[in-house]
Amino acid sequence: MYRSHNCGELRASHINNQVTLAGWVQKTRDKGFIIWVDLRDRYGITQLVFDDERTPKAMMEIARSLGREFVVQVKGTVVERDSKNSNISTGDIEILVSELTILNTALLPPFTIEDDTDGGEELRMKYRYLDIRRNPVKNSLIFRHKVAQEVRTYLSGQDFIEVETPYLIKSTPEGARDFVVPSRMNPGQFYALPQSPQTFKQLLMVGGMDKYFQIVKCFRDEDLRADRQPEFTQIDCEMAFVEQEDILTVFEGLTRHLLKEVNGVEIEKFPRMTYDQAMQKYGNDKPDIRFGMEFCELQPSGETFGFGVFDDAELVVGITAEGCAQYTRKQIDELIEWVKRPQIGATGLVWIKYNPDGTLSSSVNKFFDETMLRHFANQMNAKAGDLMLIMAGATRKVRGQLSALRMELATRLDLRKPNEFAPLWVIDFPLLEWDEDTQRYHAMHHPFTSPKPGQIELLATNPGEVKANAYDLVLNGNEIGGGSIRIHDKKTQALMFDYLGFTPDEAKAQFGFLMDAFQYGAPPHGGLAFGLDRLVAILGGQETIRDFIAFPKNNSGRDVMIDAPAPIDSDQLEELNLILNIKS
Amino acid sequence: MYRSHNCGELRASHINNQVTLAGWVQKTRDKGFIIWVDLRDRYGITQLVFDDERTPKAMMEIARSLGREFVVQVKGTVVERDSKNSNISTGDIEILVSELTILNTALLPPFTIEDDTDGGEELRMKYRYLDIRRNPVKNSLIFRHKVAQEVRTYLSGQDFIEVETPYLIKSTPEGARDFVVPSRMNPGQFYALPQSPQTFKQLLMVGGMDKYFQIVKCFRDEDLRADRQPEFTQIDCEMAFVEQEDILTVFEGLTRHLLKEVNGVEIEKFPRMTYDQAMQKYGNDKPDIRFGMEFCELQPSGETFGFGVFDDAELVVGITAEGCAQYTRKQIDELIEWVKRPQIGATGLVWIKYNPDGTLSSSVNKFFDETMLRHFANQMNAKAGDLMLIMAGATRKVRGQLSALRMELATRLDLRKPNEFAPLWVIDFPLLEWDEDTQRYHAMHHPFTSPKPGQIELLATNPGEVKANAYDLVLNGNEIGGGSIRIHDKKTQALMFDYLGFTPDEAKAQFGFLMDAFQYGAPPHGGLAFGLDRLVAILGGQETIRDFIAFPKNNSGRDVMIDAPAPIDSDQLEELNLILNIKS
Repeated sequence: MYRSHNCGELRASHINNQVTLAGWVQKTRDKGFIIWVDLRDRYGITQLVFDDERTPKAMMEIARSLGREFVVQVKGTVVERDSKNSNISTGDIEILVSELTILNTALLPPFTIEDDTDGGEELRMKYRYLDIRRNPVKNSLIFRHKVAQEVRTYLSGQDFIEVETPYLIKSTPEGARDFVVPSRMNPGQFYALPQSPQTFKQLLMVGGMDKYFQIVKCFRDEDLRADRQPEFTQIDCEMAFVEQEDILTVFEGLTRHLLKEVNGVEIEKFPRMTYDQAMQKYGNDKPDIRFGMEFCELQPSGETFGFGVFDDAELVVGITAEGCAQYTRKQIDELIEWVKRPQIGATGLVWIKYNPDGTLSSSVNKFFDETMLRHFANQMNAKAGDLMLIMAGATRKVRGQLSALRMELATRLDLRKPNEFAPLWVIDFPLLEWDEDTQRYHAMHHPFTSPKPGQIELLATNPGEVKANAYDLVLNGNEIGGGSIRIHDKKTQALMFDYLGFTPDEAKAQFGFLMDAFQYGAPPHGGLAFGLDRLVAILGGQETIRDFIAFPKNNSGRDVMIDAPAPIDSDQLEELNLILNIKS
Repeated sequence: MYRSHNCGELRASHINNQVTLAGWVQKTRDKGFIIWVDLRDRYGITQLVFDDERTPKAMMEIARSLGREFVVQVKGTVVERDSKNSNISTGDIEILVSELTILNTALLPPFTIEDDTDGGEELRMKYRYLDIRRNPVKNSLIFRHKVAQEVRTYLSGQDFIEVETPYLIKSTPEGARDFVVPSRMNPGQFYALPQSPQTFKQLLMVGGMDKYFQIVKCFRDEDLRADRQPEFTQIDCEMAFVEQEDILTVFEGLTRHLLKEVNGVEIEKFPRMTYDQAMQKYGNDKPDIRFGMEFCELQPSGETFGFGVFDDAELVVGITAEGCAQYTRKQIDELIEWVKRPQIGATGLVWIKYNPDGTLSSSVNKFFDETMLRHFANQMNAKAGDLMLIMAGATRKVRGQLSALRMELATRLDLRKPNEFAPLWVIDFPLLEWDEDTQRYHAMHHPFTSPKPGQIELLATNPGEVKANAYDLVLNGNEIGGGSIRIHDKKTQALMFDYLGFTPDEAKAQFGFLMDAFQYGAPPHGGLAFGLDRLVAILGGQETIRDFIAFPKNNSGRDVMIDAPAPIDSDQLEELNLILNIKS
């Protein structure tokens, strides 16, 4: 062993001990007659001291020559510091070095290895092994380990069995695009990497495994939006002989356990909301309920509002920004510009100020008198000092736009506290979702989700109305998990595939094994999957997942550190019976 | 919840309780006036009872109609059994059923769901979800979970951090064949699936992660030998600032922990043996030391043996089969035929019987008198009643053949007890291995293994003699883990690539990122990886890994259940810029 202790563990109680440490040179302070070196490893920083009086001249010279990130081993005596540093755990002591060995030199790193680095994203990714030395990244990876370990401990304690499902499976055109893997031994055939172990976990339920989980990599060959990765990690779970309530109970328990063990936060009972309620109150199926600002749908006082923009709209809906009546014209114009950006796409924004003096003013003074404005204020529960912001238009669109505005306002008002946790179950999701591109219904979760009992008939007449036993777990405005009770009989599954536009032959070719399995005694079952990358980031109080992934890919799906993907040898292509077809 | 209890937990103490159970019909015994049904789930079997006296007629009819593997839910009262069954945990009680619901019917399964099934391998794989219902498979998967969980608990307790490394990496022609994944976003380029996270774990050490582990899937596109899988699981580990001794200590600790927690076996200290010793004493670098039968190299009494076969041989070596002097001519001929099979390839086998009466007889009476035979017997530590078996020829070949014979004899003599555990460290492996096909040296472990200090110079003159800081952990004749101290400086790594036949450009293109990393302050480091599939099988007392893998592939790399690999759509191929090139 190159060390007797690590760089984070020596305390005043070790004074006079002989120790050996090894680590990286964080920085050197050379005062001429005395040199201090901060020695760093994963566990902390320990100060080394060399001085003219006690250190041999030759060693002083070596100490002086140490560059940043050199790897060194030192032997020495733990001594008390003259000026203690209460900011670090080893701040009471320093090491008077008696032996100094350079284990490896280091080129000057391309960015500083500090909490706040001067390195840009691209550079940090290229030298990710240096980036990982920085506390924010290192601690995020350790945090991730802790969360994963707690998940396993909790679920194992509840009799769940972690079962590894295969990575080389079969491609199915349904859903997102698969990554495929050509098979050398089966010419012309391909494996696919799993988008999730969905069918395998259902087969494990048919196989009597009863309670399954797996922390598992999944793959999607999608055009990458910001903060999406082609490979991502799920906590995948499934249970047999359960109803929705059982699943919510178990995984609320898991999430509560994590919040307590990892964040020290105790939350008694998670609130629940139907999908319809969430859409109506927050315009969003994953509302952030750390703050209020709920939607209020405005009702005209008479037959109509008497204002074309409102009268012609399918929905008139607003939010009340508490204490924002003092917003300047410039601030309000900013918000209006913000909602008009193409990403949001709103045509406008009506504002009403409930001034601190009790008067009301608005952008629609021409159309509404003060009585009317007061009528709106009453509906919207606004009080003196508040700002009301109202949008009108097609229901779906306006809800999305106002939801975006609500989040933006919350950010500006600092209402999204990273260390506050507001979990929420959203339940009763629609079974199907209309897809504008293909002009047909798609499964909102996936084709294995069961409709609510007694609603199958509705599929023929009102498919968009059919609700599913499907649920999402939302945390601070992010969907961290989602799942459903599954179909477990062949007839219903075949019916679903039919409604989703599969021919019987297609259904059989792609999912025949699952429907076969349902004929041999499939129990009722259901489950849920958490997105671990996102979950960890949110528990860690962060918005982006990248620092919680050791070696992430960039938005073109590239690993810029190892420079992958890359061309392969022509021999390899030939063995795989493939020819490249690049249009130049 | 479909049940109040599972099928394995009811005891005499529950008598008179009202319970709800759900599970599969294992079997029905219909005596006319009374029907017993064994209800099974993951946790056990509970007997249900229906009888003319206490059960409504309609329910009797339904009970009578239950087929094997039907999924049912019952409500009823726990009652004491008339004739108790001490073979099962619930054998004191049965359930007098008051409500019976068929949750799902089942076709007759294609093989019996019993510990000893009538299903062949192929059928069991096709209906793996039914195979998993059988105790031997189900229990193997649960056992695997337990082992993995213990590994994580132990290593986490030792401050190891589990870090997920990427699955979409870069192909390197070195070593086994990669599975590759075409990149749609980067036309003409491919990811590769990792054969191991080797370079990433080394980069984590450069990144200061200090102690890393990961239970991770790895991939190799090899022609599959029996009991090999294209995807397999490793317990991958790496530590910084360590020497070989530290690694042996930590992972001996892990293995000891597993043996204790999983098998209830306590083993104090694992023996160690150099590679050279193992080859000399067992003809094998992964000797099974549950039994003796060590090799004895015979020395001539004079200048020569006076027997051409021995005199012309590079090596004359034998083993002593204790108590086998009574082997018949037929039995011995069988052994001779066995070693002559092409898989072993021996030209012959000399036998000497040390008869119980103290006389000696042999297949070489023509060449050796009794004094000489007694001389051999002394060398080989044989005693009255033993059988000596001797082979002669080229060292490497003969050792391999005699090793195979030793294992075969041990099997015949029942010396390989599945519940006995004999771990062994084999250390000081050669750095390089001569490859007959390519007529050059290859890295025996991999090109990142460091030569023993002071032996680098030997590479130029005697490459085959260079020893590495490389070690294997052997359990019951299987390599369950292997690793090495790594090279951690660019110069040595470049030298290694050079010796292995890489041009500087090839080395840079494939491993430039690693050699770059070594320039920025790489600590000394080393590690080890266990093959989890094999480890679990051996701890479970089994020779084959297949039942410890939920959904294994067959020897053609196919999943016969989901029928993968399979052709993909022409659209998919086009998006990936690929054309199939199948020679028909």
